[in-house]
Amino acid sequence: MRQVRRWHFNKRPKQDIEPDTLVLREEPLAALKDGEFLVRSVYLSMDATNRLWLGDLDLYMAPVSLGAPMIGFLAGEIIESRHPDFPVGSLAAGLKPWADFVVSDGSDMQLMPNIPGLKMADAFGILAVAGPTALVGLMEIGRPKPGDTVVVTAAAGAVGMLVGQIAKIHGCRAIGIAGGAEKCRWLTEEFGYDAAIDYKSENVVERLRQLAPDGIDVHFENVGGEMLDAGLTVMKDFGSVVICGLISTYNSAEPVPGPRMFRNLIMRRLRVEGFVILDYAARYPEFQAKLAQWMLEGRLHYRLHVVDGLDNAVDALKLLYSGGNQGKVMVRIGAEP
Amino acid sequence: MRQVRRWHFNKRPKQDIEPDTLVLREEPLAALKDGEFLVRSVYLSMDATNRLWLGDLDLYMAPVSLGAPMIGFLAGEIIESRHPDFPVGSLAAGLKPWADFVVSDGSDMQLMPNIPGLKMADAFGILAVAGPTALVGLMEIGRPKPGDTVVVTAAAGAVGMLVGQIAKIHGCRAIGIAGGAEKCRWLTEEFGYDAAIDYKSENVVERLRQLAPDGIDVHFENVGGEMLDAGLTVMKDFGSVVICGLISTYNSAEPVPGPRMFRNLIMRRLRVEGFVILDYAARYPEFQAKLAQWMLEGRLHYRLHVVDGLDNAVDALKLLYSGGNQGKVMVRIGAEP
Repeated sequence: MRQVRRWHFNKRPKQDIEPDTLVLREEPLAALKDGEFLVRSVYLSMDATNRLWLGDLDLYMAPVSLGAPMIGFLAGEIIESRHPDFPVGSLAAGLKPWADFVVSDGSDMQLMPNIPGLKMADAFGILAVAGPTALVGLMEIGRPKPGDTVVVTAAAGAVGMLVGQIAKIHGCRAIGIAGGAEKCRWLTEEFGYDAAIDYKSENVVERLRQLAPDGIDVHFENVGGEMLDAGLTVMKDFGSVVICGLISTYNSAEPVPGPRMFRNLIMRRLRVEGFVILDYAARYPEFQAKLAQWMLEGRLHYRLHVVDGLDNAVDALKLLYSGGNQGKVMVRIGAEP
Repeated sequence: MRQVRRWHFNKRPKQDIEPDTLVLREEPLAALKDGEFLVRSVYLSMDATNRLWLGDLDLYMAPVSLGAPMIGFLAGEIIESRHPDFPVGSLAAGLKPWADFVVSDGSDMQLMPNIPGLKMADAFGILAVAGPTALVGLMEIGRPKPGDTVVVTAAAGAVGMLVGQIAKIHGCRAIGIAGGAEKCRWLTEEFGYDAAIDYKSENVVERLRQLAPDGIDVHFENVGGEMLDAGLTVMKDFGSVVICGLISTYNSAEPVPGPRMFRNLIMRRLRVEGFVILDYAARYPEFQAKLAQWMLEGRLHYRLHVVDGLDNAVDALKLLYSGGNQGKVMVRIGAEP
């Protein structure tokens, strides 16, 4: 019987993820039944929202139960199949356990689109979660017009590095906020941002006022807390605020108060709207086709931060909350086919 | 020379309005110039937002300057005119000083629509501010569908008492939150609400969960603070939250933190949107025609809380923040013509 190594949710963390929050176990894997297929894991996506699944607050989906396998977006190669639509040798992706092998009946995995010219790392790193999130958040929720000023927090992160470029493709001005001089350099030199603000060394509100003297049209929020307050302070009348993520609050067991400048929803007549990319599954082909085309045309630049080995998955996840990541974090569990 | 009694902004209050915040002074009134007209004040509207104009935070309009006359929505009878479009005997309304006589050049006052069958108190009390605010907030910002569950805070207040009825006219279910058994009785017996919650004696979240087991589709917020948190907690996925007012925060000199359940913008994928009725001036005729028709058909019920005498204007305003008002607060400065 095949053995599988799988991370399990062992103990609920109070704040930051702790050494015993998740544990890696080796377990036997039952033989495939009719209608199932076996996937050898290649890449596992690390997303800020994963931390929320370890809490016990009311979420947009059921959290991970204590004792159950930890899950995430995973892609791999089908190496055995008793499902006619999922042939051996194809690539499949879906929300699955953190494990070196996973089994699916096709209800929770989809075949990965085969895009000539894109490596699997790029296709999965950008097209699985970050790209659709950036595209939907900016264009469907933020809805900027050409000429608008778009501000993005965590702009050097997986989603943020794409939002600025999509804004530029649509004729907007893009201002990114990130932590540290190096990340700020990426924003303007690699990711097409018109300007970058280093929140670690600059007064964000002052710099936003200088860079957007007429105010922000669309604020794309990945962080929450002080960053969101800065954006709300400098919004233009009738602007929109996209709540994509609130990573600054995800390590807290209790709800964190909303922004102090909440009153600006009235003062500036703002629309503030949250979204979850899982709701857009049916439109993924459309989003992925658009993103892939931009990638192949060289119009979307990005950094992938690949951590090797399933053993290192927890450390990889923690990079997101320390800001230690350099681009989109993913774990390489096995070799690309 | 005619004398006018006028309230002036004397000293910025720290929190609640203080005895020396506004002072009443008698002053000479210059003779009319060409293009001006003189209005004998009849009604002055008291609106929660007035308190904001006495602060020094960034608002949706310029605040009242220290030393300047306090302003509000006012209606009166034109008793002298050197403006061809504003004849003597007509009624005019606009954002004007709290005074027993006001002068206008027509740029800041409009003729009141003449609606046969409506008394001036009703026409002004409902059609000047509260009615358009309720209509725009619910239908243009909240946009409920028939069958939706609409929750309204400060539901016995000037705007809230109308929102529930407009929701019912549009085929929605309306739940109102108010303070005290008497106001809750009005909600269901006079203002057409399907259910009322007394926040002074009931657990609002629990009651909302009972009354809206599938969640709230549209939450209409007049209060902020705990009330808004209760609504956010019980929102349905993809619901909308109308930020009409945040009266619980208006007596604070500093920005008050936003709702603790802000994260539910993501978890429930909410649209939260603020508005200011002043932005809709151009559409007032449309709104007033619709509201007046409902009033004449007996489909809109309301209570007017009329306080007599310009001397009592400050006490009238303070009723809004203590919850001591019984319906729409207005000051009768002079007799109806």
